[in-house]
Amino acid sequence: MTKFEVTILGCGSAMPTTLHNPPSQLVDVNEKLFMIDCGEGTQLQMRKYKARMSKLHSIFISHLHGDHIFGLPGLISTLSLLGRTGDLNIYAHKEIELLLKPLIRYLGHNLSFKINLIPIQPDGLQLIYENKSLRVHSFLLKHRMDTNGFLFEEKESPRHIIREMIDFYQIPVKQIQRIKAGDDFVTAEGNVIKNNILTYPSAPPRRYAYCSDTAFNPAIVSYISGVDVLYHEATFADSETARAKETFHSTARQAAVIAKEAGVKKLVIGHFSSRYNEMQHLLLEAQEEFPQTELAYEGMVIEL
Amino acid sequence: MTKFEVTILGCGSAMPTTLHNPPSQLVDVNEKLFMIDCGEGTQLQMRKYKARMSKLHSIFISHLHGDHIFGLPGLISTLSLLGRTGDLNIYAHKEIELLLKPLIRYLGHNLSFKINLIPIQPDGLQLIYENKSLRVHSFLLKHRMDTNGFLFEEKESPRHIIREMIDFYQIPVKQIQRIKAGDDFVTAEGNVIKNNILTYPSAPPRRYAYCSDTAFNPAIVSYISGVDVLYHEATFADSETARAKETFHSTARQAAVIAKEAGVKKLVIGHFSSRYNEMQHLLLEAQEEFPQTELAYEGMVIEL
Repeated sequence: MTKFEVTILGCGSAMPTTLHNPPSQLVDVNEKLFMIDCGEGTQLQMRKYKARMSKLHSIFISHLHGDHIFGLPGLISTLSLLGRTGDLNIYAHKEIELLLKPLIRYLGHNLSFKINLIPIQPDGLQLIYENKSLRVHSFLLKHRMDTNGFLFEEKESPRHIIREMIDFYQIPVKQIQRIKAGDDFVTAEGNVIKNNILTYPSAPPRRYAYCSDTAFNPAIVSYISGVDVLYHEATFADSETARAKETFHSTARQAAVIAKEAGVKKLVIGHFSSRYNEMQHLLLEAQEEFPQTELAYEGMVIEL
Repeated sequence: MTKFEVTILGCGSAMPTTLHNPPSQLVDVNEKLFMIDCGEGTQLQMRKYKARMSKLHSIFISHLHGDHIFGLPGLISTLSLLGRTGDLNIYAHKEIELLLKPLIRYLGHNLSFKINLIPIQPDGLQLIYENKSLRVHSFLLKHRMDTNGFLFEEKESPRHIIREMIDFYQIPVKQIQRIKAGDDFVTAEGNVIKNNILTYPSAPPRRYAYCSDTAFNPAIVSYISGVDVLYHEATFADSETARAKETFHSTARQAAVIAKEAGVKKLVIGHFSSRYNEMQHLLLEAQEEFPQTELAYEGMVIEL
């Protein structure tokens, strides 16, 4: 099975603490690294957790609050010092131009590679990236400014052909691709061998959803229904439910309600407020609603 | 004696490593914090080493390479989240406007305090800041772009009056300030008591100099002559002397030659290239020229 794993580089919130770095994570799909958000110090966290800079493919920014973007200048400079040549695509709200264009102009012709700023429409499910094995969608969250969640999903793989059946029915090589795609096989005698006798289904496509920052928002349930892992912000504990509403953030319990309603397999909560010195009570409150909850931490690797 | 100490927050160079953070340090003079340079992650380092954000008075930027400034956006945001109200003065080359103005515009009226960008003339010794106990001068270094070193010096304190002499000669309270300033005392009988019988000198003013980034440049010796502590960049070892020249950086040995020629009391070397996993050979090369050399490290506190 190809690699599909998420590394948490930072799961703090607006104010960094000694416990948590600002938001950033890496989604490694088949040896390509896709970054989600890039808070200050992200390049330092990449070094710390031995993420290969050369594998960084593109960057997805949820929204333009500083804690999600202030690591971009340093990361861009370092990639250039390392001699990157391939374009770097940054998917973000179109206003990122206001913040990054002056920097890009300043670094100017010294940059070793081209940066493409690709605007994300703040709207329902939008396909924003696709390659032969992966699709990335954005979808609208509910925050103080336009903010997008992201859904990473593998494409469906062809069915696996059963080796013994190839020999038994003497299936010609040139027909194998079509059988994997679902065709039946017709023998030289004219017998039709049903596809489900010849093949078995590949593993179901894996899906990862990122929802941060956002108020409690059941409207997203349809987008993330049944995902293998949901990362959902849980800035506050129950005791700060009013504050969560006011600042368009979620409590741990609200994150868990979303996970339950969406029927996800696992919930990872993060984006912890700097007021908390330990997160155990957030975990307990979330697990009351959805037992398959884990706390994010810097360096956490989630295998899908 | 009032506090005068330097905390090293980062002593790496252009590319951060797991060993060293990008350049930044705090000069604490009498409970006011003056920051020199602000590489990415500086606010995280302040938290780590328990530096009080509320004591941050102003920021001095040596030059506009990313590793010396990319921590500013995050630090500014955090100061605002903390509700700072006092102006923040940032002393830097005038082109910092190109980089910071778009950010300040973007953060806009949400900033809780005013930022003053105060241009430094790239020239010889310039007085750029002064309060009742401290003067800060900038002076030109020799780098690939306009770069300034900084000299922090205490002002001379008044002489100390000897308590027993006040009693013995029955010196009136209102004359004490003038005697501290150097006046003699005339008794009721008309006898002149010389000032040096009544007072002893206060400790000599302490001085700290910061020279980074710079090529080997003996022209700075006159500015930093006899300082208590010189922080001088030492990006490279002897084996990279050619590379140092080419990139307008110094070797550890060159830093030590400057310290020797300037007759400083102590040299601290930093701004280490990311190519080095240990710095001991840099220290040894420097100590061959100037034995009173120490290696900087993150969290180092230098008392003057």
